[in-house]
Amino acid sequence: MTQDRLILRRVGIDTYHENVAYLHRDCILYRVEGFQALSKIEICSNSNRIVALLNVVDDPNIVGVNELGLSEQAFDQFGVAEASEIRVKHPEPAHSMDSVRRKIDGERLNEQDYFDIAHDIVENRYSKMEMSAFLVAASQNNMDRDEILFHTKAMLASGDRLNWQESLVADKHCIGGIPGNRTTMIVVPIVAAHGMLIPKTSSRAITSPAGTADTMEMLANVELEPQKLLEIVRKERGCLAWGGTARLAPVDDILISVERPLGIDSQGQMVASILSKKLAAGSTHLLIDIPVGPSSKVRHMRSALALRKLFEYVADRLNLHVEVVITDGRQPIGRGIGPALEARDVIQVLENNPNAPADLRQKALQLAGRVLEFDPDVRGGQGYAIARDILDSGRAIAKMEAIIETQGRINARDLSPGKLSFEIKADVSGTVTDIDNLQMARIARRAGAPIDKRAGVDLHKKLGDTVKSGEALYTVYAEFPSDFQFAQDLCNQNCGYRIGLANELPKSFVAF
Amino acid sequence: MTQDRLILRRVGIDTYHENVAYLHRDCILYRVEGFQALSKIEICSNSNRIVALLNVVDDPNIVGVNELGLSEQAFDQFGVAEASEIRVKHPEPAHSMDSVRRKIDGERLNEQDYFDIAHDIVENRYSKMEMSAFLVAASQNNMDRDEILFHTKAMLASGDRLNWQESLVADKHCIGGIPGNRTTMIVVPIVAAHGMLIPKTSSRAITSPAGTADTMEMLANVELEPQKLLEIVRKERGCLAWGGTARLAPVDDILISVERPLGIDSQGQMVASILSKKLAAGSTHLLIDIPVGPSSKVRHMRSALALRKLFEYVADRLNLHVEVVITDGRQPIGRGIGPALEARDVIQVLENNPNAPADLRQKALQLAGRVLEFDPDVRGGQGYAIARDILDSGRAIAKMEAIIETQGRINARDLSPGKLSFEIKADVSGTVTDIDNLQMARIARRAGAPIDKRAGVDLHKKLGDTVKSGEALYTVYAEFPSDFQFAQDLCNQNCGYRIGLANELPKSFVAF
Repeated sequence: MTQDRLILRRVGIDTYHENVAYLHRDCILYRVEGFQALSKIEICSNSNRIVALLNVVDDPNIVGVNELGLSEQAFDQFGVAEASEIRVKHPEPAHSMDSVRRKIDGERLNEQDYFDIAHDIVENRYSKMEMSAFLVAASQNNMDRDEILFHTKAMLASGDRLNWQESLVADKHCIGGIPGNRTTMIVVPIVAAHGMLIPKTSSRAITSPAGTADTMEMLANVELEPQKLLEIVRKERGCLAWGGTARLAPVDDILISVERPLGIDSQGQMVASILSKKLAAGSTHLLIDIPVGPSSKVRHMRSALALRKLFEYVADRLNLHVEVVITDGRQPIGRGIGPALEARDVIQVLENNPNAPADLRQKALQLAGRVLEFDPDVRGGQGYAIARDILDSGRAIAKMEAIIETQGRINARDLSPGKLSFEIKADVSGTVTDIDNLQMARIARRAGAPIDKRAGVDLHKKLGDTVKSGEALYTVYAEFPSDFQFAQDLCNQNCGYRIGLANELPKSFVAF
Repeated sequence: MTQDRLILRRVGIDTYHENVAYLHRDCILYRVEGFQALSKIEICSNSNRIVALLNVVDDPNIVGVNELGLSEQAFDQFGVAEASEIRVKHPEPAHSMDSVRRKIDGERLNEQDYFDIAHDIVENRYSKMEMSAFLVAASQNNMDRDEILFHTKAMLASGDRLNWQESLVADKHCIGGIPGNRTTMIVVPIVAAHGMLIPKTSSRAITSPAGTADTMEMLANVELEPQKLLEIVRKERGCLAWGGTARLAPVDDILISVERPLGIDSQGQMVASILSKKLAAGSTHLLIDIPVGPSSKVRHMRSALALRKLFEYVADRLNLHVEVVITDGRQPIGRGIGPALEARDVIQVLENNPNAPADLRQKALQLAGRVLEFDPDVRGGQGYAIARDILDSGRAIAKMEAIIETQGRINARDLSPGKLSFEIKADVSGTVTDIDNLQMARIARRAGAPIDKRAGVDLHKKLGDTVKSGEALYTVYAEFPSDFQFAQDLCNQNCGYRIGLANELPKSFVAF
């Protein structure tokens, strides 16, 4: 073994998304190359390379002086056998951080800058701290629409692009912010039952208590290999999968892993994230749902219109047919908030259960109708009636069960909520005049959703309902005592409901 | 042992500034409480508590199922003996991140918001990613002057405050950006020799190739316990110490540990950082040096004036006497860039060596003169002459040697540069018309400074000097082969010098 080689060792430590390398303090390379703890190092074999954060070890039981250790995920990602000879060096610094610093200073970046940033991120040259700096610098009004276009193109180019070999590949997407708004799981079986191709890949929750992938996972396997996905879509015309297994705009996934714990979700980043993912997934026609309401992501009609134009501007330049609908976002949709509770609502609608939440059914039918109208053979305005026929006739639930079966059914379907629960009761009698989407989402998250799938909130009263003092407004479910306590504390600070007079009820300001 | 207790173990892994905790995957608490790898956990004994990032362990040699491991620094910081019983729980989330998200959305924060943020940071509730988000959101023009005042007060309140029991405690500070500008190490012995109290605490480099603390460390110990610092200052009237050992505005140090690797340094953060540190150090009178030049931090006279007003606004409201001088920042000061090379320049000036860089001597005398004029007994305009007398008479070097002796002399003083070196030569004949401060700093950092103290750049030509083609402009020194290569690559891209005609030389636009 020459002096610059070390022996690879797998260290039994799970460091999740962060690659960590372990080097003994007396390792000759540590001293000669002047590595620092917490600096990044690059590890190479003949064909593979990986960048990892360095931890310095004083205990030879963890790594010896001639060894380099990798944490479990880093070892798997590196893909080189234990005891192989490897080399270690200083990684090439992320030069594109110079562009990020210019962005922090308020400058406009060009197309090449965005490509360089995406390239350095996908090469794992950015720390989470650096990605956080990029996301905040490029948040809100700090990117103009051409910069958002550049960023979308750069994220799209960072991974693979599916080609379904069909002229119409439909998709739908809600910008989020409305708890319980699980329409996708109803729209997809309706559209697929009609025969239109809708290979739906969804993300997990970013800042919400549940994403479509988290919810679908209550019913079926959602982590599907690209080849398997292709077979399912060929057979069923649709699927409901997690988008993370294919390399579709992988930079987007990496950035989301930082946005999620930070709880930030800016408009420019949102447009680039949604459109790059859809284009990578091979979509040709996309329906976007922007809910508007006092506690939704978009609070005013004028902002919704500005966001619509932004989607249209970027999508048009990337040859994606986009239609945007602006919907009523004054309150949560359906009753359940959290993966298990939302899956229960979806199944009730698909099964035409008389107790199914009417608002979820109605909204899903409206959206499905608009998607069906992408079909040149469907007359404008007829989509809704076709969608309703498919749902009422049982063809939608049949298609859903077929999709579940092909993706891999979760045996012994159990959508029961968490074992710890408490009710929040009305302290006065009156009419429900406000339900705060953000606070309800926060309560569900504090209770453990989406990580604890059975945690969440189940609403018993909606806007306009009359309540008597002492009547239950909603129930909170949790799996673990500490989360249970956090959620209770939060409800005591602000329960999220306002009870007033019937005439104080805010009017919906959207037609749809 | 009850079921919710674990046994503390020190794990021999050095994770530097990041606290890491290790829990075995089969530990009952890991499963019951639903902890996630990379989530934060809070560890408590009867009196001590610490927050750490969780790594999950599969190897019982690292931690057993009844143990909780802490990385070396986290263990030391926790301060509880090995094998003690401890408890583990979910930490209270950092509620002030809600304020940071409002800041990202462009809102103005109030005094309470800034106090809450500083409090959560000092309690270690922020990840580096979250601090990065705060720093970028609050960068540049995103904080108004009252917000900067609030942030300064909050950082000041986060730690201890020294009281020297004297009515005049002098200090000086340069906002940085000019390589080689090591005037502090000349000003302090002059001012202390005059008898004025100047207990100087400096930071290490943030984004530059050397800070005063890094440079002074070539000559003397700079990591002094508060009690020792007090003794030195009582005896010598001055010191040149690193400010990190006392708990002076500790939030500032934590934020700097994020700013440094990110390479960001915004004006609002700068003012808050400098003034909170000086106030915590007990200063009553402060001279601030703002160098202006095309490649310095401040590029135009109008920005320098705006920054001056900002310092004055915040300092006046916190009862600190501030004077701001705007200086010539067109090129590096002195010859050396990097801790060892800059220490050599300083010693040459103090020893009245005829080869000492004249510009460093001149600037240090000007600044020392202004500080001396804080003394009510010094007539306005006489400070410079007094400073020069102290330097020329040898009283400055005598005071410096006395300070070095009391702080703890580095034996066998060796200011020789790194063992690897290369020269950059002029490719044409002419006059040096530009030296890019940023590029020279970048080259010195790429060569390894400030971490490798002997790495850096030694300038042979300055603005206005005539050069012949092939003549050396500067020498780069490094300690390690990879850094040496990086620095060479960077010089080949852009050597930082422009050679032209004598009449192209930019005029200095400041009088000082």
